[in-house]
Formats: sequence, structure tokens, C-alpha cells
Amino acid sequence: MEKQFVIIVAGGQGLRMGSSTPKQFLNLNGKPVLMHTITKFHEYSNEIEIILVLPNDHFSTWQSLCEKYNFKVKHKIIAGGETRYQSVKNGLSAVTSDGLVAVHDGVRPLVSKTLIEKCYKEANVKGNAIPCIEVNETVREVMNEGNRQLNRNNIKLIQTPQVFIVEILKKAYELPFSAEFTDDASVIEKAGNKINLVNGEKQNIKITTELDLKIAEYFLANVQN
Amino acid sequence: MEKQFVIIVAGGQGLRMGSSTPKQFLNLNGKPVLMHTITKFHEYSNEIEIILVLPNDHFSTWQSLCEKYNFKVKHKIIAGGETRYQSVKNGLSAVTSDGLVAVHDGVRPLVSKTLIEKCYKEANVKGNAIPCIEVNETVREVMNEGNRQLNRNNIKLIQTPQVFIVEILKKAYELPFSAEFTDDASVIEKAGNKINLVNGEKQNIKITTELDLKIAEYFLANVQN
Repeated sequence: MEKQFVIIVAGGQGLRMGSSTPKQFLNLNGKPVLMHTITKFHEYSNEIEIILVLPNDHFSTWQSLCEKYNFKVKHKIIAGGETRYQSVKNGLSAVTSDGLVAVHDGVRPLVSKTLIEKCYKEANVKGNAIPCIEVNETVREVMNEGNRQLNRNNIKLIQTPQVFIVEILKKAYELPFSAEFTDDASVIEKAGNKINLVNGEKQNIKITTELDLKIAEYFLANVQN
Repeated sequence: MEKQFVIIVAGGQGLRMGSSTPKQFLNLNGKPVLMHTITKFHEYSNEIEIILVLPNDHFSTWQSLCEKYNFKVKHKIIAGGETRYQSVKNGLSAVTSDGLVAVHDGVRPLVSKTLIEKCYKEANVKGNAIPCIEVNETVREVMNEGNRQLNRNNIKLIQTPQVFIVEILKKAYELPFSAEFTDDASVIEKAGNKINLVNGEKQNIKITTELDLKIAEYFLANVQN
């Protein structure tokens, strides 16, 4: 397989948690969320190049945590930007060869090695791989006037890791920033590429609230990962 | 205000839980889920008429549970049908006067009295009230060819209680069954009515898995309801 990179985006300030601790540093089963996430990629492949994008003012906290937890998984640290878009773009500057690059949320520690592997493999064949899950609720779309029911069988909630061929993602990130760029798939779609959806995992949640942390603990205790 | 009814639909067989106990009968903080749900409406108003729709073969289990837990909240029991649509239709046959009728999932025990009140009030003015919440993920729609990003600010996940003017809902339920009827809003929309969305509540979850039960316990312990 091609050379593999992962950009782990950990830019969040944790404001939604109502605490001053950024959510990627919160403790999950004995170690910070972000260490779980990084370790998952390292366990998938110890040859993968791990690029961690952190806000500048979290560098020293992260360094202290790595010392405290004796965290030895090799990773390169890059300063984040004002937006997620800018953070990923900064991360891409550390991707120094061709190959495949995953972009993954630092606060998705429950991603499985199976899903990581599937996304790299699919992207290698199809140019990209974007994991998604079904929605269980009835879904409506608000329009200029009124709203309408959507066919929920066609609605997908998007996750990470989103994996791309390096040169395609770099090319897409030459586009100017737009508010509609809520993930990387939206950037490469805007650049004219077709999106290749793959089945994600329900337990691959994004930890943004105190409840999410409890759910993550539940999955760690109850679901084979 | 008008005379008020609620049809509580508790038709689920609990198959997704991987257990033989229907999910509405599972224990949540010391009593069955369904008793929490019924009590919430009774606490909102002790004049409300409560109609519980249960599968025929759950009648005796429910009666035993009511005796065991000394559950005294007055409610009428109606036999459910093959589909949710048929169950609600059966429930409507027990709505014997004009007024307002809510339809609520038996497995949404965490609905607040505030939300119940808001839905009845809004429906009284606008004909219906359908609670919904935001979606936090990036959302894509699968099309005949490929897929596209939707503006997630316009996407709403639908909850219950959905409240209607009795005669409008009864009229809508004269329509023949369709697979697109995943809730009551979809039925009255098909009958030509406009849907009035109101803000729902994140904790008003539908309990369909073991994890949902854990989340419900978390909310009961941590969120003012």
C-alpha cells in the first residue's frame, strides 16, 4: 500500500463542555481522550505518520500530559488555525510525500482499527473514503417557506476518518475558505470530486459534551472495539 | 384550553434490544419506562385523557406490572395494530370528543412537562406542533447518482409529542397506509396540512437500545427535567 499519513485535528476549546479543559484533554478511562485517538492509529499501523494539529496555546499542556502519562507514540505537532479548514491546511503542510492521508477528529477516540483500515483501502482504490451512519429519527428539511419530510433512508450522518489521495486533498485545499466546509469531504466535493461513502460505526462518536464522555465510557466497557 | 388527549404508542417488541422484554417495560430508575412516560403526562395535567396503545399480547404483562408497582394513573388501554400507523388509528378511535390530541412514543420517558405544555399550546393556535432538534454532524443525502452535502442548519430530527387538533388528525388518518408514514406529521402533511415545527429537547430520547437506557439514566441523574 501507499505511504500513509493521518492528520488528527484537536483544535477544540471545549467551550461546549462548560469547562476550561479542552475536550480532547479530558480523562477517558484513565488517560486523555486524545491519547486514545492517537494510539488507535498507531495500533492500526506503526509505520503511519501521525500529524497532530493543536492550537498554539495548548502545546505546553499537551507536552505536560505526554510526560505525565509517559506517552511515547511518535507524532509531529503542528499549530492549528482560526478554523478547522485552516487547521487541516496547516496539517497538510507536514505531509511531505505522495500517498494517502486521513483526517480524523481528535475527539473521536472510539474509531476501530477495522474502520481505519477500510477507509485507507477504499480511498486507495476510489480516491476518497468518507464514513457515515444511518439516522434513526424522522428527518425534515426547513425551506424558505415551510418544511418537508426527507426520506431518512437516504440521509447519512458523516464521521471521520476521511481518507484521501494526498495530491487530491492538497489541490482541494487551495480553494479559499467557505463556511460550508464543515468537513474535508465538503472541500474536495467543492473542488469537483465525487464522494465515496463507506459504512461508519455507531460507537465512533465525537466527544463534545459531558454526556458524550459517559457514552464513550459505556462503549469502552460494552462494545468490542 | 380545549379538551386534551394523549395517545401513547407502546407497540415495540424490543427486538433491537436483543432481549425478549419489550423496551417500554424495561426498568429505568426503579420502574418501567412506560410508567415514567404516562406519569409525565399525568403530572402535566390530571385532566388529560390518557390512551395507551399496546399489542394485545402485552396486556397481561402490563396489568401485572401495574399491580406490582401499584401504578394508579388512570389510562385507557387499546389494542395496537400491525404498524405504528394502525396503532395510532386504533388509539384515535378512543378519542371521543373534539379538542387536542398528542401522539407520543411510549419509549420517550424523558419528555419535560414544559415541552408537553408548549406543544399543546402551539397546536391550539396553529393546528399542530411537531418538536424537533438540530443535528450536529455533517449531513449528506444519497441520490440516484452519488450524494451531496445538505445544509445541516436546515435539517431537523423529529421527536414526539406531536400535537394536533383532533378532527384534523382523524381526517388525515382516513388516508390509506403508506410506508413513508414514519410519524404523525408525515400523515397530516400528506393530507395537505402545513407542519408547524417547535423546538424539542435533546434529552427527550427514544429508548431503543441498551445504550439509550444508560443515556436516560444519565439524564435523570444530571438534567433538571
